[in-house]
Amino acid sequence: MTGKLVIIGTGPGNPDQMTPQALAAIGAGEQFFGYGPYLDRLELRPNQTRVASDNRQEIDRARAALDAASKGASVCVVSGGDPGVFAMAAAICEAVETGPETWRRLDIMVLPGVTAMLAVAARAGAPLGHDFCAISLSDNLKPWELIERRLRAVAQAGLVIALYNPISRARPWQLATAFKILREVLPVSTPVIFGRAVGRPDERFAVVPLGEADGQPADMATCVIIGSAETRIIARPGLDPLVYSPRGVEI
Amino acid sequence: MTGKLVIIGTGPGNPDQMTPQALAAIGAGEQFFGYGPYLDRLELRPNQTRVASDNRQEIDRARAALDAASKGASVCVVSGGDPGVFAMAAAICEAVETGPETWRRLDIMVLPGVTAMLAVAARAGAPLGHDFCAISLSDNLKPWELIERRLRAVAQAGLVIALYNPISRARPWQLATAFKILREVLPVSTPVIFGRAVGRPDERFAVVPLGEADGQPADMATCVIIGSAETRIIARPGLDPLVYSPRGVEI
Repeated sequence: MTGKLVIIGTGPGNPDQMTPQALAAIGAGEQFFGYGPYLDRLELRPNQTRVASDNRQEIDRARAALDAASKGASVCVVSGGDPGVFAMAAAICEAVETGPETWRRLDIMVLPGVTAMLAVAARAGAPLGHDFCAISLSDNLKPWELIERRLRAVAQAGLVIALYNPISRARPWQLATAFKILREVLPVSTPVIFGRAVGRPDERFAVVPLGEADGQPADMATCVIIGSAETRIIARPGLDPLVYSPRGVEI
Repeated sequence: MTGKLVIIGTGPGNPDQMTPQALAAIGAGEQFFGYGPYLDRLELRPNQTRVASDNRQEIDRARAALDAASKGASVCVVSGGDPGVFAMAAAICEAVETGPETWRRLDIMVLPGVTAMLAVAARAGAPLGHDFCAISLSDNLKPWELIERRLRAVAQAGLVIALYNPISRARPWQLATAFKILREVLPVSTPVIFGRAVGRPDERFAVVPLGEADGQPADMATCVIIGSAETRIIARPGLDPLVYSPRGVEI
């Protein structure tokens, strides 16, 4: 008997932003593996099993989920946002590559979702309207020197930058350091957008100029978008400004 | 009387990948502005007005939509994928900034969606599991030299690359040129993923090594993902391979 493994994303947090495809997969799943707070977002039936684990246990969680599927279960692995962006899909692939041969025969499916930067961008206007990149600021799995080099390279190349995992208790200094590096390349007026839990009741959202940006309003669940030199702010009377990156650029 | 303007994305094309939030906005809209084939995906009621325009008419379409909203209509601007990624949200912002003062008082809302690269990545495995970027290959709005410089910079920095608008009848040569440039930086074995209409009946999907990649299987609606030097392929007996970028990198 061979089971099935579906990797889904819950979207940014607002239930209205989870796709019907992901909702159907949740309805069909038997065993659910994920970080506790993401599993908490699902409405499971009593006969659906919940296997919660800590945020840092991704590869162990992936192996446990693959093991359950190989025993015949219909398994659902749950990420926040999109499962392919700094989330469980890559961890599952790593576990398959290094795991027993039988795991390669499993029916594995990844269902896309709305990743955090798209929700934060939509809340702000259109800051990702031009070429952009997504970089995880966590140095758990890559050296900090590489992150610094990438930040300089993409800022110099004129890309808008979305930062995931910007800060954590174990590394409180990295986001402020990233801003310092970016100030060497970008104008101090460049808009920086902080978005957390966008579209949920506990939303936090702020736009500040790069010259004044520090790590303050961010936590691990915040997505930070730093504009390019072209990114603009449209003031609107009585309304939030629109932050956007023009589609075109002239040199 | 002041109207309302909502900018939505239809997702990659599979109706199950459009968010309930976008579906609700469609239900509430009165006038719909968009590229014809995107409007064709909506099930509109007879009392909902459809204003289709050509793919290249983005700024004129944005102005027409804003004008309708300023006259009191409830307007829905429709993009494919996510409206903030190489789509209508930035065009609307540009039109607001350069338009009449009254447009700044409009209630404008952008609703995020699943952008093409996420659907193509999910189909392949997890190629966007590490730092990545999204670049439009169209030189309608930026010089080709800038595109070339960006491709070199991001490939050297180790980012996975998603290319939007990779080719069109007016510029058939650019995608092959992009591959040529990337071969100067990346191993010829680097996986290149072509995805079009993923999740729809007319899906086209292929994975080829960079050394053999040319512009052939792509058109304007294709999203092309080029791995980094770390991106890997897991062969699976009787199943499509999994293409993924490991979360970590060592130097």
